[in-house]
Amino acid sequence: MSEPKLLVLAADPLPRLGRLTGKVRVAYADEDTLAEQLPSADVLLVWDFTSDAVRRAWPGDGSRPRWVHTPSAGVDRLLCPELAESDTVVTNARGIFERPIAEYVAALILAMAKDLPGTLDLQRQRHWRHREGLSVAGTRAAVVGAGPIGRTIARTLKALGILTAVVGRTPRDGIHGVRDLDPLLARADWVVCAAPLTDDTRGMFDARRFDLMQPSARFVNVGRGPLVVESDLVAALDKRWIAGAALDVFEQEPLPSGSPLWDAPGLIVSPHMSGDTVGWRDRLGEQFVDMYEAWSAGRPLPNVVDKKRGYVPMHDDSSE
Amino acid sequence: MSEPKLLVLAADPLPRLGRLTGKVRVAYADEDTLAEQLPSADVLLVWDFTSDAVRRAWPGDGSRPRWVHTPSAGVDRLLCPELAESDTVVTNARGIFERPIAEYVAALILAMAKDLPGTLDLQRQRHWRHREGLSVAGTRAAVVGAGPIGRTIARTLKALGILTAVVGRTPRDGIHGVRDLDPLLARADWVVCAAPLTDDTRGMFDARRFDLMQPSARFVNVGRGPLVVESDLVAALDKRWIAGAALDVFEQEPLPSGSPLWDAPGLIVSPHMSGDTVGWRDRLGEQFVDMYEAWSAGRPLPNVVDKKRGYVPMHDDSSE
Repeated sequence: MSEPKLLVLAADPLPRLGRLTGKVRVAYADEDTLAEQLPSADVLLVWDFTSDAVRRAWPGDGSRPRWVHTPSAGVDRLLCPELAESDTVVTNARGIFERPIAEYVAALILAMAKDLPGTLDLQRQRHWRHREGLSVAGTRAAVVGAGPIGRTIARTLKALGILTAVVGRTPRDGIHGVRDLDPLLARADWVVCAAPLTDDTRGMFDARRFDLMQPSARFVNVGRGPLVVESDLVAALDKRWIAGAALDVFEQEPLPSGSPLWDAPGLIVSPHMSGDTVGWRDRLGEQFVDMYEAWSAGRPLPNVVDKKRGYVPMHDDSSE
Repeated sequence: MSEPKLLVLAADPLPRLGRLTGKVRVAYADEDTLAEQLPSADVLLVWDFTSDAVRRAWPGDGSRPRWVHTPSAGVDRLLCPELAESDTVVTNARGIFERPIAEYVAALILAMAKDLPGTLDLQRQRHWRHREGLSVAGTRAAVVGAGPIGRTIARTLKALGILTAVVGRTPRDGIHGVRDLDPLLARADWVVCAAPLTDDTRGMFDARRFDLMQPSARFVNVGRGPLVVESDLVAALDKRWIAGAALDVFEQEPLPSGSPLWDAPGLIVSPHMSGDTVGWRDRLGEQFVDMYEAWSAGRPLPNVVDKKRGYVPMHDDSSE
């Protein structure tokens, strides 16, 4: 029996695949050659996970890989209806991004509470101006998204003394359902979006929801750009419906230099980096190799995406 | 018996003294009139706690107040040898600043780990440049200062997964003595100074100690400015002996606009605000009123400073 063929969507050879030497034939594809190579692949590793080439190439002729892995938390770039309805297993990188993203959210919330952007502005002007910060202990956060990232964010904020509610698709132990979302938004000091991007969640943060929030509230998005109606957020900041926001993800990435988001009042713009900490690519490579060894030994794969829902469902989450 | 006389060193009338109406005669002094009013005062409230007027006025003629309260954590501005050797009780504002300062330190450490200053710089240029942050979980911190502020900082950093050691004057349960300081500095990713300013601690962060630290280390001072030899810190940053620093306190405050600290590489300058959160003056006023009521009822005062050591000693800390 010949070795399985692993097709990697990546511009450059990958780190950390050495352990698979002799166990797999590795081929590389780019966005242009992916369609023609798909029929011969047993496994597809979507290393360039910001590409939507898979979504475009999948509905083609010939056989399809049995397993597709994306080294990201979200699978929105990947899932087309034909892939969702196929027998192909899709897995994600659960376990890699949770703590870095939770730390990043804590960094943003604390920076806004202590007006660190204002401090850095004043420092550039060599201007000493004392101000009063907020104490985050005892404030209220609503974290939207009850996957492992949302729940890790909630644990981290709770550790800082922030009273934190988590909102998921369906209510369950310790997690609010969507029905509670609006009342929770209305009394939150911090609203954190860490939801998956699905048909149900696209555009969920719109003018109506920003209008519900307190004038002192701050909004943070580390999920996916299209969860937010960006023009509505800019308007909400302009009209001081909310006090500030921080976006790490955008409808279009990189954010075009002409976007009004860059200088919206009270908005922090960061370049989709919340989960990316030194060594992250190595960790993603090692995670895939571990998963490949399980797969080739016939053991069950972890992190299997529910392709109808568009994320890894809770019951798979044995680590939490 | 006439009411005791409370002398307040403050430019403006104070908030939150209403509860003392009828129990005390309140008089106000400024830096110029303090000396002449001291002999008639039973209690001195040093509301303008950044002033060193008490230190200058104390060694005068006539009787002295029996109790001096400063609404600050540090008492270094206050203590002159004559006050230290007198029978006058000195108290501080223990309990007000711990959590705000701990949050502020967490904000600085997370901001440096995630390069938030770099992100804000790039945002001003409308420039999208992805970078990798550090995960703080699993990094090492050394917190210098084992009072309630240092210990609250340590608890907060531990809650973020940072391996945190506390260094105090003498070793005791869970706290390292000064003997361990240098080895702890040598392996710390984060060095946080929250020590009281005394003859023993003045200038403790000097060229030798910055040289001990790792090139990747960051230094944070929320104690008092003279704990750090500022010119040595600038040199250490210039020579890349350490990767960054954040100072909230300075030898001279406000920091003069010509100071080289404003644009030292990798240095965050903030205007002595780490403990000051919305409502802090009210909380300080209420704390003094509570203490005054205890004092006038003959109950023991909390937060009594050991005037020889220059801080409230640990055994007084029943809340920890």
